[in-house]
Amino acid sequence: MIRRILCRGTSFTAARFLKDRSRISVRAYSKSMSGSEVEKNFDSLFKKIDELKPRFIERLAKGIEIPAVSGDESLRPQVVKKAHYLADELKKLGFSDIELRELGTQPPPVADPNLQLPPVILARYGNDPTKKTVLVYGHYDVQPANLEDGWNTDPFKLVIDEEKQIMYGRGVTDDSGPVKGWLNVVEAHRELGLDLPVNLITCFEGMEESGSIGLDKLIADEAENYFKKVDTVCISDNYWLGTKKPVLTYGLRGCNYYQIIIEGPGADLHSGIFGGSISEPMIDLVKVMSTLVDTKGNILIDGIKEMVAPVLESEDALYDKIDFSVDEFNAASGSKTALFDNKKDILMHRWRYPSLSIHGVEGAFYGSGAKTVIPAKVIGKFSIRTVPNIESAKLDQYVIDHCNREFAKLQSPNKFKAELIHDGDYWVSDPFNASFSAAAKATKAVWGVEPDYTREGGSIPITLTFEQELKSNVLLLPMGRGDDGAHSINEKLDLSNYFGGMKTMAAYLHYYAASEEK
Amino acid sequence: MIRRILCRGTSFTAARFLKDRSRISVRAYSKSMSGSEVEKNFDSLFKKIDELKPRFIERLAKGIEIPAVSGDESLRPQVVKKAHYLADELKKLGFSDIELRELGTQPPPVADPNLQLPPVILARYGNDPTKKTVLVYGHYDVQPANLEDGWNTDPFKLVIDEEKQIMYGRGVTDDSGPVKGWLNVVEAHRELGLDLPVNLITCFEGMEESGSIGLDKLIADEAENYFKKVDTVCISDNYWLGTKKPVLTYGLRGCNYYQIIIEGPGADLHSGIFGGSISEPMIDLVKVMSTLVDTKGNILIDGIKEMVAPVLESEDALYDKIDFSVDEFNAASGSKTALFDNKKDILMHRWRYPSLSIHGVEGAFYGSGAKTVIPAKVIGKFSIRTVPNIESAKLDQYVIDHCNREFAKLQSPNKFKAELIHDGDYWVSDPFNASFSAAAKATKAVWGVEPDYTREGGSIPITLTFEQELKSNVLLLPMGRGDDGAHSINEKLDLSNYFGGMKTMAAYLHYYAASEEK
Repeated sequence: MIRRILCRGTSFTAARFLKDRSRISVRAYSKSMSGSEVEKNFDSLFKKIDELKPRFIERLAKGIEIPAVSGDESLRPQVVKKAHYLADELKKLGFSDIELRELGTQPPPVADPNLQLPPVILARYGNDPTKKTVLVYGHYDVQPANLEDGWNTDPFKLVIDEEKQIMYGRGVTDDSGPVKGWLNVVEAHRELGLDLPVNLITCFEGMEESGSIGLDKLIADEAENYFKKVDTVCISDNYWLGTKKPVLTYGLRGCNYYQIIIEGPGADLHSGIFGGSISEPMIDLVKVMSTLVDTKGNILIDGIKEMVAPVLESEDALYDKIDFSVDEFNAASGSKTALFDNKKDILMHRWRYPSLSIHGVEGAFYGSGAKTVIPAKVIGKFSIRTVPNIESAKLDQYVIDHCNREFAKLQSPNKFKAELIHDGDYWVSDPFNASFSAAAKATKAVWGVEPDYTREGGSIPITLTFEQELKSNVLLLPMGRGDDGAHSINEKLDLSNYFGGMKTMAAYLHYYAASEEK
Repeated sequence: MIRRILCRGTSFTAARFLKDRSRISVRAYSKSMSGSEVEKNFDSLFKKIDELKPRFIERLAKGIEIPAVSGDESLRPQVVKKAHYLADELKKLGFSDIELRELGTQPPPVADPNLQLPPVILARYGNDPTKKTVLVYGHYDVQPANLEDGWNTDPFKLVIDEEKQIMYGRGVTDDSGPVKGWLNVVEAHRELGLDLPVNLITCFEGMEESGSIGLDKLIADEAENYFKKVDTVCISDNYWLGTKKPVLTYGLRGCNYYQIIIEGPGADLHSGIFGGSISEPMIDLVKVMSTLVDTKGNILIDGIKEMVAPVLESEDALYDKIDFSVDEFNAASGSKTALFDNKKDILMHRWRYPSLSIHGVEGAFYGSGAKTVIPAKVIGKFSIRTVPNIESAKLDQYVIDHCNREFAKLQSPNKFKAELIHDGDYWVSDPFNASFSAAAKATKAVWGVEPDYTREGGSIPITLTFEQELKSNVLLLPMGRGDDGAHSINEKLDLSNYFGGMKTMAAYLHYYAASEEK
């Protein structure tokens, strides 16, 4: 089902960092004036994108203000509100066949059994049978964010640091910036009176941060309907590897997210009264969670290592050429706590080895200070990032068996359950097809450099679904940088990446339209 | 420094549960009419307390509405507001020398370095040199509570279940009910035109749930000043052992509360991008916390067991007579997850053995659903309940050394610190002094039974300070029941306990006033 890594004889261009951003634009413009038919409008297009800066920032700011956290059931109305905001914008820009496609009730585990999934936004721009059709995917939901987590500014307000030329806000890079980017590219064409060179179809979902529930089925259902004429899919929901050089991404890890539920007393208890006489779920939980992974990052669950594809010699050599450094990694993590002291090991453990992270505990005391509580029911959360050739169902079985076995050893009277919350498979693609080639040319035209070809440690499970259901290629075209802090506090997007990213998107559509292959 | 357990030749009366509460009152009244000088006013006093029911419930309700959570820095203004509410009530009731005594700035760890401690409320009722002086201690601060933790009703609204005759609300039994109880006893005397048989001094603090910071010094400072004439101290901040029989309490465990702080990356990270390449603080934390205690309740830290006083034969025999059962324990915990299958082991592990509870983790993901975060800084919270003859400073050293040793084994690059947040020593007293004897008679007069003599698993560290600084006895006179759920969700106080408790307090003052000893 999964294609193997396809990196035969690639020649990666060494990175070159141009400190003066204005010089990048000059180069791009002068290149575009060199005369090819495809590039003839780049100059005016890029200029128009720059001119529309206030409007494009305002469009992003309005979206950021809606706390569309899909993982928080109580905020579901806000997710829906953001869908309507986006649909209204599409309408203003002349998109047609706009649908807020309902996906039904969210399956368990949920607190509210009637919780409705947020809608998927389908829309078309152009329906010319002589043009190629590009499906652009993005998501309008965001990760949770609270000021008290350590944000310097309100996470649900777009704040611009004028000196640094950086925008801050939850979702600014993941994934509101890229989603607005596509809308802005259309607007720039309209303002110029320039025809969009392809038909565009949007597929913007509101559950990406919570496992894209319901989207697989919609894509399968629409493969021969709404998405019938799609030639290629472009997903802009990832990041440059570092902070300096644009990349194109041809692989992703999957993610299987688990929870361990341990229930003891009927309600939280006073540790003075019950401590020492009652079996504490939290004690069971730390025991079980401590058996999952060692502090060097080795997963301690039997059977997983054996499923990982071996490193081929040709693959091994590729890592040396990537523009990346341990210093850059440390800068992005804000610490010197890397598990490896060299670029290759770090990238391999991000891209092609599985990893296990423990995210937290629901139900225990989480505030500051001291609370003398024995939590009655605790839910430990952890996830495993998956890579070729891990089989998802087998993995689940190994994980759940391991947890059950470790809990059994404790001889605890508490109730125990380990379960999968959601999963998404890994993905790898051919980085030299028509879509990737168009994106490489666009990158060169805008940024003046050849992109690095990278994989990602994160997961965009829907990538694989698009590829399989629509039988089309999928391109991952990132807008933000590796230090943007997606899923973290103080999430940011550099203004140069927002505008450079839009120009790259625009140029990509033109190059792809002109390519001979699909 | 600490007196050893003094239970020589005690004869405990078997419990008898009278289902029909009205019969208890009839008995108490008929007993009071038997003629002793002390008891001559009990009939009218108890009747007056019942008559004032609406006023006494309203006084309690108004206090519950103020979320005086001392452990939440952001709610500090509410704690102060509650102090002012109480002081106003004292003023209305004719208390004199009312002071809201400031305790200065809260020492670290605090987020706000200028955070002021809530005041201690000092007040007098009567200053007659021919009368004995009783200091009544209570606290007006409460544990944290959120509706989403599983409360059936708003925790900061007093809600009465009329059918069950139960009041619900955060602090209703811990410790607002008892504090209001003393005020109500004074009011009942005033309404009857009856002289209070003793001078009363209040010492109501606002930091009990957060280590009673600052109170030790105030008590020491006032020992020869405000508290100079104090003959005995009565603390009403604990519970009956079970749900049926009143108790008097002559021992308490201490509590040393610790935190483990582990810091890695500069900010929370995306587990897709960094998982497998970075050392995760949360993984270190579960490893260290898993070494603290086993699932049978045995503390795994070297040196602690050796400090615990051995069980004497005479002590061992006492447990058989206590009115308590495993069923009652299971009912209180709402589960069958007791670590022992017999009354004696359960009570011994509550009263005279240390215990270690893991309360939770600050800084990790704590919400429902799935968040793919690598938390940058996590703080594990646990506490040890202490008993004779554990030396607090030695314990701290053993705990911190253990944590440091276990963390060192992990060879983690993260920053690690284990520290004490607050401590309070254990306490044991002579249960047959004048004050305990008066309370025993009062219990008999109100409830028609002899009290059980119990110890408590919880901590009221200030008990020991009062005893040492004022060189007076301390009585623990509980109002609520063992299943009230202090520190838990749906905290409650039975109306019969609120009113029976007040009558017991009133009768206690009369018996104590009449006793020959101090």
